[in-house]
Amino acid sequence: MSTPYSRIYIHTHTSRCKIQHRKSFLFSLSLSLFLAFSACIHPLRKSESMAEEKKWVLMVTAQTPTNIAVIKYWGKRDETLILPINDSISVTLDPAHLCTTTTVAVSPAFQQDRMWLNGKEIPLSGGRYQNCLREIRSRACDVEDEKKGIKISKKDWENLHLHIASYNNFPTAAGLASSAAGFACLVFALGKLMNVKEDNSQLSAIARQGSGSACRSLFGGFVKWNMGKDENGSDSLAVQLVDEKHWDELVIIIAVVSSRQKETSSTSGMRETVETSPLIQHRAKEVVPKRVIQMEEAIKNRDFPTFAHLSCADSNQFHAVCLDTSPPIFYMNDTSHRIISCVEKWNRSEGTPQVAYTFDAGPNAVMIARNRKAATLLLQRLLFHFPPNSDTDLSSYVIGDNSILDDAGIKDLKDIEALPPPPEVKDNVPAKNKGDVSYFICTRPGRGPVLITDENQALLNPETGLPK
Amino acid sequence: MSTPYSRIYIHTHTSRCKIQHRKSFLFSLSLSLFLAFSACIHPLRKSESMAEEKKWVLMVTAQTPTNIAVIKYWGKRDETLILPINDSISVTLDPAHLCTTTTVAVSPAFQQDRMWLNGKEIPLSGGRYQNCLREIRSRACDVEDEKKGIKISKKDWENLHLHIASYNNFPTAAGLASSAAGFACLVFALGKLMNVKEDNSQLSAIARQGSGSACRSLFGGFVKWNMGKDENGSDSLAVQLVDEKHWDELVIIIAVVSSRQKETSSTSGMRETVETSPLIQHRAKEVVPKRVIQMEEAIKNRDFPTFAHLSCADSNQFHAVCLDTSPPIFYMNDTSHRIISCVEKWNRSEGTPQVAYTFDAGPNAVMIARNRKAATLLLQRLLFHFPPNSDTDLSSYVIGDNSILDDAGIKDLKDIEALPPPPEVKDNVPAKNKGDVSYFICTRPGRGPVLITDENQALLNPETGLPK
Repeated sequence: MSTPYSRIYIHTHTSRCKIQHRKSFLFSLSLSLFLAFSACIHPLRKSESMAEEKKWVLMVTAQTPTNIAVIKYWGKRDETLILPINDSISVTLDPAHLCTTTTVAVSPAFQQDRMWLNGKEIPLSGGRYQNCLREIRSRACDVEDEKKGIKISKKDWENLHLHIASYNNFPTAAGLASSAAGFACLVFALGKLMNVKEDNSQLSAIARQGSGSACRSLFGGFVKWNMGKDENGSDSLAVQLVDEKHWDELVIIIAVVSSRQKETSSTSGMRETVETSPLIQHRAKEVVPKRVIQMEEAIKNRDFPTFAHLSCADSNQFHAVCLDTSPPIFYMNDTSHRIISCVEKWNRSEGTPQVAYTFDAGPNAVMIARNRKAATLLLQRLLFHFPPNSDTDLSSYVIGDNSILDDAGIKDLKDIEALPPPPEVKDNVPAKNKGDVSYFICTRPGRGPVLITDENQALLNPETGLPK
Repeated sequence: MSTPYSRIYIHTHTSRCKIQHRKSFLFSLSLSLFLAFSACIHPLRKSESMAEEKKWVLMVTAQTPTNIAVIKYWGKRDETLILPINDSISVTLDPAHLCTTTTVAVSPAFQQDRMWLNGKEIPLSGGRYQNCLREIRSRACDVEDEKKGIKISKKDWENLHLHIASYNNFPTAAGLASSAAGFACLVFALGKLMNVKEDNSQLSAIARQGSGSACRSLFGGFVKWNMGKDENGSDSLAVQLVDEKHWDELVIIIAVVSSRQKETSSTSGMRETVETSPLIQHRAKEVVPKRVIQMEEAIKNRDFPTFAHLSCADSNQFHAVCLDTSPPIFYMNDTSHRIISCVEKWNRSEGTPQVAYTFDAGPNAVMIARNRKAATLLLQRLLFHFPPNSDTDLSSYVIGDNSILDDAGIKDLKDIEALPPPPEVKDNVPAKNKGDVSYFICTRPGRGPVLITDENQALLNPETGLPK
């Protein structure tokens, strides 16, 4: 995993919160983190008020990917600690296309912990945020500034307040695991700010308490969340199976599907499934453990047919236990079904799987193509079956790595209209479904969390600690 | 079960097929079947040709209901004998609204077995028809005419050919168990024609070999199909739990849902589920046996809340194992989901279930209301959410026992437009879904098979044995 430099802004300092001044300031982080100080440090004069003295702000900005499970997490054995009833495996998505950026800041001037999500302030009073903040604070370490003589000692962190600003580069409500990337990024960024010594696996057990699937966003490539055995959840954490370079042929296309239905939140959905589905325990105890072993093997060997079979089957079984819930939960809709049908027909006609699909708690399809060529052929099929509305701009209909459009020979909407029916449906071409897909995102497996060194990308003002 | 008189037409006779003439003709059937001869018996003259001599046609017409499972049959342990992997329980629907009428005829003039379904000749070569015909022929008994001196002896039936005409009073393709009513009616009618001594349970084991769920259409009221244990299937048959008078408060509304998707046949669907679903065996062995016991008890006690809970849960679990199949099978669509959502919301708001729903291998909803009042309130809700297209005639949009429309105060389309939102959705009224439902059928639990005495209802011409 690459660890770029982080620019941390320290403007001034005070002793109010038992923060000690020192000549030398050493900011040691477990990863090779370098600090750069903002040029705008205002030297204090003795006549300045306490308010001005409290003005320094220390910040870290990080970026964390989202992930999509290929062996699904559905059902908790502990609601508070967020301990799952089975292991799960995910692929991390390239943060270039889907990620959360979070800036965390500390300042003695801050009166309370505050958070802004996509520019809007949200309450931090929820148990999930509180659990993450408590756990990360309890692991905070000394932060020293040799040059300026600042020291934030371990116990100071209990009294310092935080400002947090988070931004998703994709629609929060689109059902693309925004909470996974969000909590992972929060915990990762705070870990850096507070000089927490724990490694990413250990941090994942904290992120897990914000949102279960967040623990899998602490790594790139393919990631396994071990359900663990301990009652306190200490061994329920994520480990990297392989990094994003291990299987870099894979190409991922996401269909963001328009939906009329209001969806059940995954939190209440999985609780209702565990309480009412007669099938969920059989899935968790008998089916998933075998699939996890097979999936690890398939990923290790880059065995696409097995990978595709397991991914599709496990996605469908997750939706099956949702349907087996009382009252039933439907996440997939007719468009989701049609996308599955399109992929299944093509895979069958090719004799071996070209594409795997998986659906989380919503109607969006995440399709994993075995290579760039399969992705190109897939995109042609998807655009044939789900063309954009005529007033849609192609560049907003296929986003992310839209160079696949060039491979597919598609430059404008006319090229989509001119697409011939795929051979496998030639005898029985189904009706086209304009407007059923909002847009497609082309992406790939990606890296884990990184620190952001470009100060322009920080989401908080380095002087005020408020959103820019 | 009532057993009305049947009119059987015997026109003339021949000894060609070892059919013996007798002065007296006694037609004894296990049920109190009376025969009436057509007035148009043409006395033979010696000069008449053999062709004319062979002209007699013996016919029986019967009517058999369709049924809807409330504990579902899905999965066979023997594909040829059609032996299921679990018991199932159904409610028989009133044949006044949904039934198959079948006329079976025998004549020495017939050159081969032939069948017409809804007026169109269909091949009888399929194994399922052949199995039913073989099994019923092997149980055929002597048929005697004391008056006219005709006797068809037991072994004559092996050499006589049959004409069969069958007609559904509902769309065959609408996914309303037409094959269940069809095979039940075929076997029942042939049993009467051939003076078969077996009771309806034993006949059900023959109908089962045509279409599994057909065995449950041999009885009215609530019916259980015992999966049985014998390898030869002799104990895999239907028994009546209670007749249609036991719980006559129930009212049934069926929403025939428009569908764009071509559906997987239930035969191949259940085979694929058994072959590929990791959940189906757990369902069949662990879940269903308990539900069957609870459902029998609920029916016996007219315990609607338990009945509704089990019906809905088992329908959803059946669709869950379809989804757990590779490739997945979808029978319900967005309209089905919206109907479920409408019923679930209302049930929850009332505190106790007013309506149970169940879906077979298609998108149509079968809703069972606890009583007439609940059915009226249900129909208002359904018409509010799923109004007809403006060019639709109300009398073709709500069919069957549409007197419920009067109770609901609905005389025309304007009354539907004027329906207020149901209280349970008042704060969040969903979009209306014009055109998503093709029509509604109002019906109730109904009786088992009957013989039809009105000769006008026979589907074959009494002289030619060909469709009218």
